[in-house]
Amino acid sequence: MPNIALLPGDGIGPEVATAAVEVLNAVAFDLTYDEHKVGGAGIDEYGVAITDEAVAAVKASDAVFLGAVGGPKWDTNESGAVRAEDALFRLRADLGLYANLRPIRPLRALYDASPLKRELIEGVDMLIVRELTGGLYYGERGTKDGRAYDTMVYTVEEIERIVRAGFRAAKSRVTSVDKANVLDTSRLWREVVTRVHAEEFPNIELEHELVDACAMKLVAAPRHFEVIVTENMFGDILSDEASMLTGSLGMLPTASLGGDGPSMFEPVHGSAPDITGQGVANPIGMILSGALLLRHGLGREDEAAAVESAVDKALDKGIRSRDLGGTATTAEVTKAVLEEL
Amino acid sequence: MPNIALLPGDGIGPEVATAAVEVLNAVAFDLTYDEHKVGGAGIDEYGVAITDEAVAAVKASDAVFLGAVGGPKWDTNESGAVRAEDALFRLRADLGLYANLRPIRPLRALYDASPLKRELIEGVDMLIVRELTGGLYYGERGTKDGRAYDTMVYTVEEIERIVRAGFRAAKSRVTSVDKANVLDTSRLWREVVTRVHAEEFPNIELEHELVDACAMKLVAAPRHFEVIVTENMFGDILSDEASMLTGSLGMLPTASLGGDGPSMFEPVHGSAPDITGQGVANPIGMILSGALLLRHGLGREDEAAAVESAVDKALDKGIRSRDLGGTATTAEVTKAVLEEL
Ligand SMILES: CC(C)[C@H](C(=O)O)[C@@H](O)C(=O)O
Ligand SMILES: CC(C)[C@H](C(=O)O)[C@@H](O)C(=O)O
Repeated sequence: MPNIALLPGDGIGPEVATAAVEVLNAVAFDLTYDEHKVGGAGIDEYGVAITDEAVAAVKASDAVFLGAVGGPKWDTNESGAVRAEDALFRLRADLGLYANLRPIRPLRALYDASPLKRELIEGVDMLIVRELTGGLYYGERGTKDGRAYDTMVYTVEEIERIVRAGFRAAKSRVTSVDKANVLDTSRLWREVVTRVHAEEFPNIELEHELVDACAMKLVAAPRHFEVIVTENMFGDILSDEASMLTGSLGMLPTASLGGDGPSMFEPVHGSAPDITGQGVANPIGMILSGALLLRHGLGREDEAAAVESAVDKALDKGIRSRDLGGTATTAEVTKAVLEEL
Repeated sequence: MPNIALLPGDGIGPEVATAAVEVLNAVAFDLTYDEHKVGGAGIDEYGVAITDEAVAAVKASDAVFLGAVGGPKWDTNESGAVRAEDALFRLRADLGLYANLRPIRPLRALYDASPLKRELIEGVDMLIVRELTGGLYYGERGTKDGRAYDTMVYTVEEIERIVRAGFRAAKSRVTSVDKANVLDTSRLWREVVTRVHAEEFPNIELEHELVDACAMKLVAAPRHFEVIVTENMFGDILSDEASMLTGSLGMLPTASLGGDGPSMFEPVHGSAPDITGQGVANPIGMILSGALLLRHGLGREDEAAAVESAVDKALDKGIRSRDLGGTATTAEVTKAVLEEL
């Protein structure tokens, strides 16, 4: 019996988590759940964003299912202060989840929701592979005497393993994104990608793109991209930009993989304090994260595909939550999906 | 007689520089020009992207007018190698040009060129104020034993002066962009912006936005922004993203200000090696940079406005270079602008 570490988190996190667990239970009858308070909820209850006990329990689980963390209540400017986001940083690091996968595939039924002209968004189907345990997020930093610094650090090994994840996910082309005309980490990155490509993946096309140029091309010609692989901070920015192209952030799932233990699955959207408690959050990002959990976390492709196809069908039949211009509540969207299973 | 340091640079740089000088000469009869080879052209001629003599001459000038630098011929991955871009880094640092201003104002005649739906792009009129002499671009870096690092550094003074530039440029709202949930530099940034705002610009609205959220909002609701102020690398990425929203990178000018000596003006586009030598580059980005040079570099508002209005009129009458889906050559676009002066 696979055990899922369920971390609903803050804001709409618990609302969409409840919805997604209902859907998971409808296709996978043997899952058990172990729930922990993390993020702001962890701070309120235990004074830390995630307790050592929770980390230990999570490590012993088969997959991690996270809602969202953070909110204005726990925002602070102070260096060294406890932040809701620390739960994410610790989970990523302690579980060794160096590869964050973000598929960007706008649904036909939602093309109209995109800010982009239809002819640009039609057929977009890309995967962003973001490095998740290195770079500016984990480098040395500090503030002293009116001067602050952060360090972007990468080793050859860290670059090798993430670009391999990128190449493995690609059918024909990988776009490696860096800022090699400025950064030493990017020059090392480009060198390593070039070598790994030549030695291990010569049949995949490799192109190098500067991060600023990539930010442009994502808007001007998103269909160009198949797999984008890039470092942590660039991936954070570019994947949010790309997500928005679909016009429906509430729809998008993400998977964080790479460790020896469980992988982590969560929606792309945040805790959305503005709509918390109203029962109107779009649960589809979390439901589709559940599908990724079934596929990548538990190796259950059939059940994953069943969930994805139920979501497609429910949308085709017209169900729309508020973020998509509709009026359906979280419960109504969930019911519509369940009816297609 | 104002003396302009003319740095045509590489690729289409010299082509658009020639065009823009023609236009400048038609409104400002007393300008003299002092030309220097920089970028790849500098490397080919002198072995360095910019010579000490050129730097000295530029410092003695009244304004710097730069085409574009770089190209595949001078691309290299090696740390410490000579790069065409070094000319930019040295000019920015030696002239103290800490404030890069990038106005994003899609022309009505070109709304159709935008990748965004018309209702989103109509009326967009924002200014991105990018810090240009700090952060990852100038921090300590190195590569050793398979490990590379770059340092993002900011002092209180560096942040104060750039955010002041942002507030001064705003009528009603400034969006300060950082990644305060991760970076110490961003937490210092947010602290300083908040204080400068309260003490010196209480009548301007200040909002804080995380860089990933900003990358989304630029696509989803670009009209929201009036002035965006941010650090060097975030500004590099976001301003290129925002530029592309206009659908016409070839149209956009930029000004780098802040030093005791001359300021620098250049188009947003690069050296475009793919179309170099064909006489088809769009000169309007460089021509409008000339307008910014007249305004910010020489304090000649009337002449600047005359150039800008001539460009508007020429476009209204239908002239379009290849990047805008037309067939007009560089010379034909230049002539069309000259005819409106
Ligand atoms: C909450 C924040 C620290 C986080 C990040 O930057 O990694 C988020 O933006 C994400 O993409 O998961
Ligand atoms: C050429 C490159 C180093 C430069 C930068 O990143 O500053 C360019 O992208 C720019 O925006 O002027």
